[in-house]
Amino acid sequence: MTTNSEDLQFAKRVSIEQVEEGHEFAPKFTEQGLMACVTTDAQTGEVLMLGYMNQDAIAKTLQTGEAHYWSRSRQRLWHKGATSGLIQKLVEMRVDDDQDAIWLRVTLQAGDQSDPASCHVGYRSCFYRKVNIETAQLEFTETEKTFDPEVVYGDAPNPTVL
Amino acid sequence: MTTNSEDLQFAKRVSIEQVEEGHEFAPKFTEQGLMACVTTDAQTGEVLMLGYMNQDAIAKTLQTGEAHYWSRSRQRLWHKGATSGLIQKLVEMRVDDDQDAIWLRVTLQAGDQSDPASCHVGYRSCFYRKVNIETAQLEFTETEKTFDPEVVYGDAPNPTVL
Repeated sequence: MTTNSEDLQFAKRVSIEQVEEGHEFAPKFTEQGLMACVTTDAQTGEVLMLGYMNQDAIAKTLQTGEAHYWSRSRQRLWHKGATSGLIQKLVEMRVDDDQDAIWLRVTLQAGDQSDPASCHVGYRSCFYRKVNIETAQLEFTETEKTFDPEVVYGDAPNPTVL
Repeated sequence: MTTNSEDLQFAKRVSIEQVEEGHEFAPKFTEQGLMACVTTDAQTGEVLMLGYMNQDAIAKTLQTGEAHYWSRSRQRLWHKGATSGLIQKLVEMRVDDDQDAIWLRVTLQAGDQSDPASCHVGYRSCFYRKVNIETAQLEFTETEKTFDPEVVYGDAPNPTVL
């Protein structure tokens, strides 16, 4: 296992051919040291969330087999499910053509809840609303929450920033 | 139709409840005026790409029914497929809990190619490589390109930035 945080070394980006057609993991981070990461349910293909990872989050995810992100609102490494029990088990990590985005395929865990879920608002997916194409108003695609956020998170601060 | 670029007005973000539980489309853009956008194949659920949208890209996508993005490398509005013919037909637009990310479900068009595709390198999805969990090296999940980028794009500059 070479993916311990201390050991994980990314390749230097030297050419477009290397980045797009090669076997070296040579990710491109933003000035803040982040990459966008989309996470889907490995069984259903549903998009669960869009988060951000830094080098440590990538390493910890590979090392532990559980999704880790960088929380921009809390400015710290975020082991998804550490508070709620709603862990995301890693099935596959993909990287895109120019290696500036990650796709995680995961299996959702239910923790102490009756159903697995991913979203802090209580829905299964964070993308529980669609945009009506005619009116640009939002319509709910999930009609019931899978858990009560107040029970799961208590008085922990809401991560949504206005 | 209220989604013409000129007419599309987003709601002001006034409360967490409004943003997370409401019906108003009140997106949060970065300082650069962008939102991350994940695009999936509406039939297979496959993640095709991760791009960025500004207000105009959202409006044009709703108005035309074809995916538009903001190209960060070219710093301009990008009608996906305008050069290649590989248009993405909009099936559904979703927004996440805190309204800072978009999920587009699309149907891929083939243009003049034999098969539909999305990635400028020639693969169907931009995420054509997975990260080996043990070695952190990349392995190809698509073994054949669906089109020849040189034929489709000619000498147009490659959008990948090192």
